[in-house]
Amino acid sequence: MLETWGWGLENVVYVVVVEQNYQMGEFTLIKAIKNMFIDCGGSQIGDDAAILDLGDQQLVVSNDLTIEGVHLPKITPSNSRIDDFGSGCDISKITERDFGYKSITSAISDIAAMGAEPRWVTLSLCGPVGSDLLEVMEGVKEACVQFECDLIGGDLSVSPVLMASVTAMGTCKPSEAVPRDTCSVGEAIWVTGPCGGARCGLRLINKEIEIVDDALVGDLISKQKRPVPRLKEAILARLIGASSMIDISDGLAHELDQLANGANVGISIDTVPIYDGATLEDALYGGEDYELIFTLGPEVDAIEQFQKAGLNPPIKIGMTVKESELRKIGNKDFLVNGFEAKW
Amino acid sequence: MLETWGWGLENVVYVVVVEQNYQMGEFTLIKAIKNMFIDCGGSQIGDDAAILDLGDQQLVVSNDLTIEGVHLPKITPSNSRIDDFGSGCDISKITERDFGYKSITSAISDIAAMGAEPRWVTLSLCGPVGSDLLEVMEGVKEACVQFECDLIGGDLSVSPVLMASVTAMGTCKPSEAVPRDTCSVGEAIWVTGPCGGARCGLRLINKEIEIVDDALVGDLISKQKRPVPRLKEAILARLIGASSMIDISDGLAHELDQLANGANVGISIDTVPIYDGATLEDALYGGEDYELIFTLGPEVDAIEQFQKAGLNPPIKIGMTVKESELRKIGNKDFLVNGFEAKW
Repeated sequence: MLETWGWGLENVVYVVVVEQNYQMGEFTLIKAIKNMFIDCGGSQIGDDAAILDLGDQQLVVSNDLTIEGVHLPKITPSNSRIDDFGSGCDISKITERDFGYKSITSAISDIAAMGAEPRWVTLSLCGPVGSDLLEVMEGVKEACVQFECDLIGGDLSVSPVLMASVTAMGTCKPSEAVPRDTCSVGEAIWVTGPCGGARCGLRLINKEIEIVDDALVGDLISKQKRPVPRLKEAILARLIGASSMIDISDGLAHELDQLANGANVGISIDTVPIYDGATLEDALYGGEDYELIFTLGPEVDAIEQFQKAGLNPPIKIGMTVKESELRKIGNKDFLVNGFEAKW
Repeated sequence: MLETWGWGLENVVYVVVVEQNYQMGEFTLIKAIKNMFIDCGGSQIGDDAAILDLGDQQLVVSNDLTIEGVHLPKITPSNSRIDDFGSGCDISKITERDFGYKSITSAISDIAAMGAEPRWVTLSLCGPVGSDLLEVMEGVKEACVQFECDLIGGDLSVSPVLMASVTAMGTCKPSEAVPRDTCSVGEAIWVTGPCGGARCGLRLINKEIEIVDDALVGDLISKQKRPVPRLKEAILARLIGASSMIDISDGLAHELDQLANGANVGISIDTVPIYDGATLEDALYGGEDYELIFTLGPEVDAIEQFQKAGLNPPIKIGMTVKESELRKIGNKDFLVNGFEAKW
């Protein structure tokens, strides 16, 4: 009954439930597509982003869809060009500007997660008559300015709901890109920050929960509306030798499983860092936190390296182990909870 | 009342008319977006594709939306994985496979029109429950194989109508890319083939006209369903010195105007090449032919050069002139008929 899915990394937090007759599931379809394109690019499908060799540079390319009502709650038209942050309007509303901002950040987070530097984006944008596309573009621009990307082209059309497809491109030097599936047994697993804030923010927006601390509410909702990709952290993780890296757009549990599957290692977790106000379930299964998971040889002190660089210290959450089927937190198995949409 | 629009080149042939209150028109919006992004990529917006300098190569990037009911008529589910060409089913139906094929060709035609070689595509694909996305992907694969592109990634979701957003990337050597706005006064204007076939094919599919010659009907409908980007012709045009180039996705008249506006030249046309079965109106205002317009110094015999390369000879249709407002066919002004959607 889940209405959204992806290949590569997908930012899925808002799920529409409808009555439907399932015909084909997400994972079956992605596998079929990968096989179908085995001779024309299929090997690139499945990581956060594709890595293209261009002589003295690598080009890293990711593609992400953002759909109103699927990846974000329905938009509340802002009817103003003033940034709604701090302007007194209801912070729990999702505006066109939030939509534009988030469509960019989800794609460039995938570039960051490869250890590359996001540089360019293209945007396909479409929405119903009455959409304030300039407001969407204001959000796109905020993200482009904040994360130093150029919008180099796009396409526009009318459609039944507001949708954005962003292709983000970044560069790094040859062999610098860090895939998700290249860690080894016995490495430490690090996360750049506590998880679950975005999902908890979504539950606040949807009025499923109440929290009395206004500052905390604002903070959690911002995590959902204005996620910040960890660009500096990703570059630093690469520089200190990260053997694999992935961003948490589908929830910690799912991403750990992705990382382990590709490398044929098991996962043993000691601690799950939980965002203030969020629950363990938010942290394990909530998407769109955009924190990074990376793996390092056990001798590297990532905390010291991050602090030296003026970044928040990452959290060591566990180790990779040789039992490749193992997915444990302490002594308990954790569920690998992936959304699977069907048509 | 027109429901579709674009920035850069846009392939718009199928127009949905609805009752609406106009709020902002296409051209106003595109201009606003270009201005808004003046410091972060805005200068790249407006040509067929963006040109990125990557040291010893140029990367050329285009982005195109294809929406069922907007850029193509509504899909007739094929309920079979067998290519419908020659298989006895109704050729006038648009299938998921046609949709997939066309979504790729519209984006790579923009790469070709810059004189670059298309190499990679990413695809965002979404459609309602019940869509046969594997059939769409079969069409995508047909195009990728035929035009030697790799599908390197994408994203998938459920949405109210079938939509595809394709980002195509191609390469060429530094300074090789041919923009649309760089011709001079006194150059010859060439077109790679007769125009209007795709629009005439659309009118056949929509049963607005009848033609008795079955072979011609099949040919015209194929022009709409399976447009062929002029990749070899584009490379050759570049090699023999084309000073500017553009593909005809919005109709000959509109594209000639685009070419002239950017270069501040006028256009004097002697002859309009019309596809068999099509009308002058189809040829001037019909989109999605994917033929190329290019400009050359008057001394170059493009016919001889194309024939030497085994390609169909292009047609010299007129000249650029110094009266920059002039848009004439013989002694008559031609209308510059651009679609403008509003929200």
